[in-house]
Amino acid sequence: MVFMQIGFVSAESGQGRAKNVRNIMLKNSVNIMLCAICWWAVGYAFAYGKSAGGILGVSHFFSDGETFGSKPWFFTWTFCLSSVTIASGCLAERTHLFVYPVYTAVLSIAVHPVIAHWAWSPDSWLSNKTGSPCRFLDFAGGTVVHIVGGLTGLIGAVICGPRMGRFEDGVHKEIPGHDVSSVSLGSLMLWFGWFGFNCGSTYIYMGADVVGASAAVSRVALNMTLCASGAGMTSLVVASVMSGTFDLAVCCNGLMAGLSASTAIVGFVTPWAAVITGVMAGLLYVGTSRLLVRLGIDDPLDGSAIHCGSGLLGCILSGFLARPAYVEQMAGRQCGGVVYGTHGGDQLGMQLLGLTVSIAWTALWAVLTFSVLKHYGLLRVDQQTELAGIDNMEHGGPAYPEFLQRVHTSRTGQ
Amino acid sequence: MVFMQIGFVSAESGQGRAKNVRNIMLKNSVNIMLCAICWWAVGYAFAYGKSAGGILGVSHFFSDGETFGSKPWFFTWTFCLSSVTIASGCLAERTHLFVYPVYTAVLSIAVHPVIAHWAWSPDSWLSNKTGSPCRFLDFAGGTVVHIVGGLTGLIGAVICGPRMGRFEDGVHKEIPGHDVSSVSLGSLMLWFGWFGFNCGSTYIYMGADVVGASAAVSRVALNMTLCASGAGMTSLVVASVMSGTFDLAVCCNGLMAGLSASTAIVGFVTPWAAVITGVMAGLLYVGTSRLLVRLGIDDPLDGSAIHCGSGLLGCILSGFLARPAYVEQMAGRQCGGVVYGTHGGDQLGMQLLGLTVSIAWTALWAVLTFSVLKHYGLLRVDQQTELAGIDNMEHGGPAYPEFLQRVHTSRTGQ
Amino acid sequence: MVFMQIGFVSAESGQGRAKNVRNIMLKNSVNIMLCAICWWAVGYAFAYGKSAGGILGVSHFFSDGETFGSKPWFFTWTFCLSSVTIASGCLAERTHLFVYPVYTAVLSIAVHPVIAHWAWSPDSWLSNKTGSPCRFLDFAGGTVVHIVGGLTGLIGAVICGPRMGRFEDGVHKEIPGHDVSSVSLGSLMLWFGWFGFNCGSTYIYMGADVVGASAAVSRVALNMTLCASGAGMTSLVVASVMSGTFDLAVCCNGLMAGLSASTAIVGFVTPWAAVITGVMAGLLYVGTSRLLVRLGIDDPLDGSAIHCGSGLLGCILSGFLARPAYVEQMAGRQCGGVVYGTHGGDQLGMQLLGLTVSIAWTALWAVLTFSVLKHYGLLRVDQQTELAGIDNMEHGGPAYPEFLQRVHTSRTGQ
Repeated sequence: MVFMQIGFVSAESGQGRAKNVRNIMLKNSVNIMLCAICWWAVGYAFAYGKSAGGILGVSHFFSDGETFGSKPWFFTWTFCLSSVTIASGCLAERTHLFVYPVYTAVLSIAVHPVIAHWAWSPDSWLSNKTGSPCRFLDFAGGTVVHIVGGLTGLIGAVICGPRMGRFEDGVHKEIPGHDVSSVSLGSLMLWFGWFGFNCGSTYIYMGADVVGASAAVSRVALNMTLCASGAGMTSLVVASVMSGTFDLAVCCNGLMAGLSASTAIVGFVTPWAAVITGVMAGLLYVGTSRLLVRLGIDDPLDGSAIHCGSGLLGCILSGFLARPAYVEQMAGRQCGGVVYGTHGGDQLGMQLLGLTVSIAWTALWAVLTFSVLKHYGLLRVDQQTELAGIDNMEHGGPAYPEFLQRVHTSRTGQ
Repeated sequence: MVFMQIGFVSAESGQGRAKNVRNIMLKNSVNIMLCAICWWAVGYAFAYGKSAGGILGVSHFFSDGETFGSKPWFFTWTFCLSSVTIASGCLAERTHLFVYPVYTAVLSIAVHPVIAHWAWSPDSWLSNKTGSPCRFLDFAGGTVVHIVGGLTGLIGAVICGPRMGRFEDGVHKEIPGHDVSSVSLGSLMLWFGWFGFNCGSTYIYMGADVVGASAAVSRVALNMTLCASGAGMTSLVVASVMSGTFDLAVCCNGLMAGLSASTAIVGFVTPWAAVITGVMAGLLYVGTSRLLVRLGIDDPLDGSAIHCGSGLLGCILSGFLARPAYVEQMAGRQCGGVVYGTHGGDQLGMQLLGLTVSIAWTALWAVLTFSVLKHYGLLRVDQQTELAGIDNMEHGGPAYPEFLQRVHTSRTGQ
Repeated sequence: MVFMQIGFVSAESGQGRAKNVRNIMLKNSVNIMLCAICWWAVGYAFAYGKSAGGILGVSHFFSDGETFGSKPWFFTWTFCLSSVTIASGCLAERTHLFVYPVYTAVLSIAVHPVIAHWAWSPDSWLSNKTGSPCRFLDFAGGTVVHIVGGLTGLIGAVICGPRMGRFEDGVHKEIPGHDVSSVSLGSLMLWFGWFGFNCGSTYIYMGADVVGASAAVSRVALNMTLCASGAGMTSLVVASVMSGTFDLAVCCNGLMAGLSASTAIVGFVTPWAAVITGVMAGLLYVGTSRLLVRLGIDDPLDGSAIHCGSGLLGCILSGFLARPAYVEQMAGRQCGGVVYGTHGGDQLGMQLLGLTVSIAWTALWAVLTFSVLKHYGLLRVDQQTELAGIDNMEHGGPAYPEFLQRVHTSRTGQ
């Protein structure tokens, strides 16, 4: 899963402009280091410690005790870190360096761990105190990672406002990244790192049943591949028909959308359902991306369209497509999606409940955090820094000092 | 093994010119996604389904049934995908985008699965209906992956013709890649991803014998390392003596040639035999690469020289160097190479038979596919697109929009 | 662990100037291939073969015999290779290509294997013939890999002298790398590859105790993460306060310093001790790096400050912070650090003894090797080559032939 981080950073760096590459690299490095310290001190305890009344874990702060709780520290850390990194991309190229440690701490302490506890602890109120025979299904973090990260980033992008030159006089202008190669390789790294995410989760679900786990992992790997391929192909074809050019970025982002959707659902469905999920994720990505532009929201990596949109889709589709046999195998409940007709809409109801509380909790903290930062003038770099490039003003010089760059005199600040 | 894909794409992108990077990235992404869908729908079934008369597998289409056949879907998919990617490199920088989905489907459905069934199914005609006491040995795809991919690419490159400016007035001109760093890092990624390929195959061969498998994997990892190192060193030294410069590309490609040869043979031989195989693969690569230039064939990545040549070498050398104890351990037959004198030339005969039918089947489909595409004018981009760069004409702009590039007015189209 | 190599090469290439990228890539490829052959022929036997009088291993040359000695060939090779690669970075951008195979052979045959035997063989004089109840603790190569590599590189850098333009008229000038993105991604790859190093070592220590190994691996992964994060954060904060800019390179290098220190110590300490080690490693790195500049020593990647300094720190801190329960679990001795008061300073004494002999042996060979090379005029490229770039003079052309570069007419030779 750690490999995914390299993919994220590579893709984000490539989609940024050359003048901000040092900034992008540094903030991601700081995020990783600070998230590790927060997760060790508090986050792990809140998420996977012994549950206090089904609300929050309260043991294993600072990894006390000889052994850990129910899940390995390092594996769970990568989940928290992914949500931090997803949000980070939405804020790129105009945000004050001080923003990153602040929201990283908030996300690693107050947001992700709480939702992880609700969604995944067998003792949480969402698991066994709702009166429903079913529990909220989120296979490997469609909500806990992707909605948390994507929604935080989306709210941050809205409060921060668009980069200079992105929307002018009612017209939006593309700001192309400086290195497409890095974007594409990063996306492939993400894809392949993602297998660790979903397949590793399968082992956690299956516990001691090694033979069953091996079969389940095979299915999960197949489902992921199909969901990602279906989404990537769908968004490429649809966008190409609409625009007349074959756009690599749409293909990469569609693929990511398929992976995000798969994270919510792959363990509970058949391969055919994975294909359907993928196709819908591809369509949803293209639509959401265009909607954000229409609304004047500048998300440099389309991270909110990819992660928040697809995480939502995957979790809702679980209420329709989850196969009862797999739900029982993985989650220990006799429930299933609407199409299987087992329990009527019980499962779908739990999905909607889980999504609602997760979105509300995440949005609350995100609005609070970014509003406070904005109030104190710490959210955005000044215009001069944004135009000249954060690297030149804050990080001692350009990322590629030997290569000549085009000079842009327009107000887009490229 | 999936890591190998990133290596392939990185190396190919770096060896191309900057004006075609988006195209290279997009076609490889499309290949990956389409290959996944084909392999799920039909390919896996043809290759690893229940054998119909020893000719073709006919079960597990669309992964029907709760469990898979004899081998895991994902692992086998990476083999099919590698052959697709190998062929892709040979066609770079002048091929119509439409070519890639067509040949990917052909390779994933009609070519690779059939040869995989013949070579690896214990029920195939090549395994047990030839009257020979031996069976065709191809450890991890020297024929099934590397000859299939390299030969398809070679035939495509011949039918498609060289890039503009590569051969002019009887003189060949080098077209250097735009990013040597990406090539070299990609080669290292390939090397290290390759360990998954060969070591994973060892586990498949050894099945339930966990202790034996662990020892065999150690030997395979050592053999691979020696074969690759021997080949890389040999080609670097030979080419440096011949040309007077120390050429990084020759070193990287020699290394790849050693890995390709090792794929055919590593499980069946001793470390000393692996060194000999590596040295021969290095020499063969340098010779083949020069021969292709002499013949006026333009293979931008030397993929056919590397993969087809070395796959052939490795499979033939198995007939000479395979150690009887290892053949019995892995393939369950009391056979061995000529130098061990166990069964005279029985094993060598099987190698030649297997190679002949595999080459014939691959060549048949490649000639057919590329000829039909050429007939309908879908094989090559037009001259204007090739000169301006496919990125600018089809993919919405250059891959590195911020960096200044040299302007070439010569007819080489750089 | 092989992934670490890609990280090393990526980081080194990015920190070099564009005119030497082919050279950097080629020398690292040659180092890898030659190190493999040396390790197969002699190195493994010296290090892990049957001990002759506690001084040197003397069995399993050329991997003779059906099975290997006490440890797997491939895993141990990556340790030797890491020490070779660490040294390589210190010599970049002005060294003759001939230097690399020479010192690689010396390090892979005469230095690393001998110290590995002393430190890790249970039959070595350092393990059981010193009269101390304790043995020298070096968890995963703080001395055996990082001091060996970093000290060899430091001595090479001193004897070779600084790059042209690095120190002029008593003033030092920064020579910025050409690709910060590559440096930062390489550092992340190193970080994540490093988990294989330390976690893999844990399995070797714990042997058949699978359940205990699983818990120990969890602790090691946590400790590593904390040590690296603590070091990276510390050096970033300290250097930013001192210089006024947020320097990405300092952050990446601080992180590496934390990882190097962790390599010596992580298996034997608690998470709190890992944090302390990390903070000290971050401080030490910033101080050592400035000291080297003050002394007029030009180490292009700060490899000696990172690896030699932190390896030393980690091994000394083991004498203070090693927890007796973990030492008994991993090393089978009833010993511990000074702060636990178990055996007084016995453990610390062993650490100092082990460090002294390791440093002396490494320095002896390094001084000898580089002095002889210098004597015969084979250490450094001539001034013209250094100014024009080694790529143009020896490797057939620039690494990025399509991109325009700045022209520098100053004497710095950029």
